[in-house]
Amino acid sequence: MPRIVYVNGAYHPEAEAKVSVFDRGFLFADAVYEVTAVIGGRLLDFPGHCARLRRSLAELDLPSPATDDEILAIHRELVARNALDLGHVYLTVTRGEADRDFAYPKAGTAPSLVMFTQARASIETPEAERGLRIASVPDLRWGRRDIKTVQLLYPSMAKMQAKRQGKDDAWFVENGEVTEGTSNNAYIVTREGTIRTRALGHDILHGITRAALMRVAGELDLRVEEKPFTVAEAQGAREAFITSAGAFVTPVVEIDGAAIGDGRPGPIARRLRAAYLETAIARAI
Amino acid sequence: MPRIVYVNGAYHPEAEAKVSVFDRGFLFADAVYEVTAVIGGRLLDFPGHCARLRRSLAELDLPSPATDDEILAIHRELVARNALDLGHVYLTVTRGEADRDFAYPKAGTAPSLVMFTQARASIETPEAERGLRIASVPDLRWGRRDIKTVQLLYPSMAKMQAKRQGKDDAWFVENGEVTEGTSNNAYIVTREGTIRTRALGHDILHGITRAALMRVAGELDLRVEEKPFTVAEAQGAREAFITSAGAFVTPVVEIDGAAIGDGRPGPIARRLRAAYLETAIARAI
Repeated sequence: MPRIVYVNGAYHPEAEAKVSVFDRGFLFADAVYEVTAVIGGRLLDFPGHCARLRRSLAELDLPSPATDDEILAIHRELVARNALDLGHVYLTVTRGEADRDFAYPKAGTAPSLVMFTQARASIETPEAERGLRIASVPDLRWGRRDIKTVQLLYPSMAKMQAKRQGKDDAWFVENGEVTEGTSNNAYIVTREGTIRTRALGHDILHGITRAALMRVAGELDLRVEEKPFTVAEAQGAREAFITSAGAFVTPVVEIDGAAIGDGRPGPIARRLRAAYLETAIARAI
Repeated sequence: MPRIVYVNGAYHPEAEAKVSVFDRGFLFADAVYEVTAVIGGRLLDFPGHCARLRRSLAELDLPSPATDDEILAIHRELVARNALDLGHVYLTVTRGEADRDFAYPKAGTAPSLVMFTQARASIETPEAERGLRIASVPDLRWGRRDIKTVQLLYPSMAKMQAKRQGKDDAWFVENGEVTEGTSNNAYIVTREGTIRTRALGHDILHGITRAALMRVAGELDLRVEEKPFTVAEAQGAREAFITSAGAFVTPVVEIDGAAIGDGRPGPIARRLRAAYLETAIARAI
């Protein structure tokens, strides 16, 4: 059975899921997106993803394609039609279709809404089991990484650069400090046992899983400080890990060839992953 | 008669010109583009655009969708089918269609090639007649602006920001110096009569019209220095102008509310526009 994809009000088999070549998502990367994890057919952190979508749309003066309830209904319809148990739902909103012009199209131009599912064995992954090996790369992205746009070419290039070095993923470094991963937020656990991650701002994505991690860490009485760290500090840390909607909490065991801690997933990262999953699954809708 | 658009080997009426929602141009802005001006049904600076396309593809390890001759043939076919006299041909190459993954798709995945025409009264424009009023904005773009990717959201935002201020376009400023315009290279003519523009590097587009301008300036015995300038230097300049494939050479008469020279298009910019057009039309194919 082909995957069923939602495009602007209709459900299509994936081979027929198309957008106009004049869609501004295609011509200008004038589009934002969200990825919501699905476990047992239920949506994780959905209100958080909806709230961030609203923020991205507002920052770009992008019109809303649907209400939160309508967006939720399409998520559920896609999960049902594709019998999705484990994986995620991808959603993108673009500024719609108009003849090519740097200036935004005239008011009233309908935004495009495209959504599809991806099945993923996301809970028991080799990465969670053995931990990620990271390569650092210069952060060459634009200055508003807090807006979740589809301008993802450089993260994609960075991921390939890491893979060519035999690593799993890349962390971006700016002014000597780690900003975040290609599609995830980055953390270390210091020698003192404090979880450290960069504070929110224009330079990193405001991760929904990051926000959940903060809550979970609090419940586990773990200290969190929002402060950037260098690659050397990561290499000298007790543990390291990442968070994202797709990878939940996943341990990091190496950066730029240097093992972190004993080179195996650390106990705090493992504990946070288990606690995050437990909480998120309990709250899933 | 609807516009005819080229998509991956076939010609379609514009309403049927579509790409998959899984095209990496749509999901990751993993795509490059070129815009070639058309005057009298002939292509301006075509070899330059082809050479830059090759460079963009190589920088991104993007496979080539067609030979230069094939690309030229499609340009000509589109010009003919759309009876295009004045305007331009837009071309984009993406990394093709694959299920969504930051990692590049497997080798052998066919790149997408999409091309369409836009009719424009490009020679006698109000902008060329009265000159452009420019607003400066911080340059928040990514670090490889020499690669002509479709990551154009910020230039689009900057253009709108300028329009909201009642201006025509924006110039980007980084570390106190002008880099370039939203979709054009930026120049001033100093009090001494020297044309000044930023040197090529990763921070600006390697304009095809910029290269032609350099040749034309040489033929007119005008001195050109490749050196950045500040907004204050532009405001104090004798003249200013921009170059692009769409706007050729277009005078700038104001930046951030301050008139440049006497606030009217300057003689050097006018002379360069006329000389560029004469040469480019003579060499058009």
